[in-house]
Amino acid sequence: MKKLTTTPSLEDIKTAAEAIAPFVHRTPMLQSSSINEILGTQLWLKCENFQKVGAFKMRGASCAVAALNEEEKASGIATHSSGNHAQAVALSAKMRGITAHIVMPSNAPEIKRKAVEGYGAHIYPCDPAIESRKARTDEVLAETGATFIHPYNNYNIVAGQATAALEILEEMPDINIIMAPVGGGGLMSGTALVCHYFGKNTMAVGAEPAMVDDAFRSLQSGIIETNDDINTIADGLRTNLGEITLQIIRDHVAKIILVSEESITAAMKMVWERMKIIIEPSGAVPIAAIMTEPEFFRNKSVAVIVSGGNVDLESLPF
Amino acid sequence: MKKLTTTPSLEDIKTAAEAIAPFVHRTPMLQSSSINEILGTQLWLKCENFQKVGAFKMRGASCAVAALNEEEKASGIATHSSGNHAQAVALSAKMRGITAHIVMPSNAPEIKRKAVEGYGAHIYPCDPAIESRKARTDEVLAETGATFIHPYNNYNIVAGQATAALEILEEMPDINIIMAPVGGGGLMSGTALVCHYFGKNTMAVGAEPAMVDDAFRSLQSGIIETNDDINTIADGLRTNLGEITLQIIRDHVAKIILVSEESITAAMKMVWERMKIIIEPSGAVPIAAIMTEPEFFRNKSVAVIVSGGNVDLESLPF
Repeated sequence: MKKLTTTPSLEDIKTAAEAIAPFVHRTPMLQSSSINEILGTQLWLKCENFQKVGAFKMRGASCAVAALNEEEKASGIATHSSGNHAQAVALSAKMRGITAHIVMPSNAPEIKRKAVEGYGAHIYPCDPAIESRKARTDEVLAETGATFIHPYNNYNIVAGQATAALEILEEMPDINIIMAPVGGGGLMSGTALVCHYFGKNTMAVGAEPAMVDDAFRSLQSGIIETNDDINTIADGLRTNLGEITLQIIRDHVAKIILVSEESITAAMKMVWERMKIIIEPSGAVPIAAIMTEPEFFRNKSVAVIVSGGNVDLESLPF
Repeated sequence: MKKLTTTPSLEDIKTAAEAIAPFVHRTPMLQSSSINEILGTQLWLKCENFQKVGAFKMRGASCAVAALNEEEKASGIATHSSGNHAQAVALSAKMRGITAHIVMPSNAPEIKRKAVEGYGAHIYPCDPAIESRKARTDEVLAETGATFIHPYNNYNIVAGQATAALEILEEMPDINIIMAPVGGGGLMSGTALVCHYFGKNTMAVGAEPAMVDDAFRSLQSGIIETNDDINTIADGLRTNLGEITLQIIRDHVAKIILVSEESITAAMKMVWERMKIIIEPSGAVPIAAIMTEPEFFRNKSVAVIVSGGNVDLESLPF
C-alpha cells in the first residue's frame, strides 16, 4: 500500500481493504426484529465492537502501518491517545514487528494503559492537557525518529476506516443509508467516500452528540469549529475535525444529525438489552439519531457502523 | 413431535431438533483468543444469549408446545415462573396461536412482566412463596383446562434443551467437553444425552454455584437435595433437580464443578470485556468452573452453553 497524499480514490480504498485484510476481522452485520419494530426501519449494525482492540480504529491503524517504508518501520511509529487509537496503533505495530511509542495522559484509565502495554508498546506518560500531549509527542518523535500516526487527519487512516462501509456494500449493495458517528471524522469521511464511489444512491449520514456539535457547525461555516464543553458520554467523539476530514465530509456527507446525551444512553441500553451485545456510547450515537429523527429513516434500510465496544463496566450510565 | 414419556432417545432428539427449527435461532459459536490464552483451553461459547427471548429456554418450550394435541392447543398452556421459562412459554404459544397462562410472583421485575405481556400471555400475579405459586397454578389449571408445562421435569423439555448440544456436535464433532450450568437440570440432562448418543467420547460436565450445590449433593446421595440459602447471583440456577433430570444426570454427567460467587462475577466480566457480548450470571457459571479447575480443562476443546443474556442492567455486580 502506498502512502496517500490526496483524498483516497476508489482504487485506493480497494487496495487498503486488501492490505489490511490479514490484520483485521471482517465483522458481522447483525439486526434485531424488535429494534426494527421500535424504530420503523430495517436497521443493520456493522459490529466493529467485535473488531480487534474492540473498535474500528484497527482498520485505519493497520492501513497506516501498511504504508510505511522499510526505514520508517525500523524507526517505529508514535501517537498520542488514551483511547482506541492507541491500542490500534500498538497492536498494528506489534503484528508487524514494529516498535510503537504511545504518549498517554497520566490520568488515562489503568485498563487502557495495561492494554497498550500488553501489546508491547512503549508508554510515555504526560500531563493531560492537549498542549502537553503534543509537546511530549514532539519530544518522543525527536528522540526516536518514529513516524507520527495521526488518529484521523491522515489519508491512509481515512482509507482504512473506509473499509468498514465497503464491507457493508459488498454484503448489502442496495442499502439506502450508511451512518457513522463523527468525532475527528476519519470513519465518517471514509464511509462517505465509499457511498460516493461504490453506492447505488447510498446516502452517508453522520451523527454527533449535540454537546460536541463541532462537525455540524463546521459543515455550515466551512472551517474547523471547536467545542467548549466536551463532557459528552460519547468519549470517542470529543475531538474536532481535521482539514482532510472536513473537506471530504463537506463534499460527500448528506447531513449530520445532533443527538441528546439522554438519547445516546437510551440507544445504548436498547441494544444491550435486546441484542445482548456491548456497544460503546459513541457507537450508539447514530442509533440515537434514528430515534431523534424517525421520519427521515422510516422504512429505509440503514446500516450503522458501531464504532466499538470499549466501555468501563464499572461506570455505566444506566 | 410426540409426547415423550421416557428418557428421550437418539431419534427423539433428532425429531425435536426438526420440530423446533422454525421457532428458534440456530445460535453461533464464538471464541476469543485472549480468553483462550487466559484459560489455557480452546473454549467455544454456544451463544444462547442470542436465542429468542434471550435464553435456551425457548428450545424446550418450543418442543413442549410441538407435542400438544389439538384439544390441548385449544385449551392453552400454563406455567409458573418469573424468569426465562415464562417468556419462552409465552412466545412459543404466541407463535402457534395458543393461549398462555403465566403465574408470576407479584414481586417479579416489571421488565419481565412486560415482556411476557408483550407476547400476549395472561398473567396471574401471586404471592412469591413457592407454595402460593403452586396453589395459584393449580387454580389456573382447574379454571382454564390448560396443559401445565414444567420448566425442566418434562421429557419434551429435556429433548428441546438437548438441541443446543446437538448443534455443537454438528459443528465440532471432535470436541472434548460440553459444559452446561445446572439449575433444574433440563439443559444439563439434554446436553448429557447428546454427548452420550452423538459424541465421540465427548464428556458432559456441569457447573453449579457452591451456594446452591443441590445437584452436586444429589449426585452423591441419589435423591433430590434442596438448598437453604438460594441467594446466588446466578438467578437461573436456584431450583433443585426433578426426578427426570436427576436420573439422566446420574447416568450421563461426568461431574459437576462448584464455583464461588466471586468467580461467577469474574467470568461474566471477562466475557463482557473481551468478547463484547452480554451473558447472564448463570451462563458464566461453567466458565467460572474452568477458572476454578484449570488443570482439568488444560489444552482441551470445551464448548460452554451460555444459558442466556437476560440481566438487569441497573443492578450489575461490577
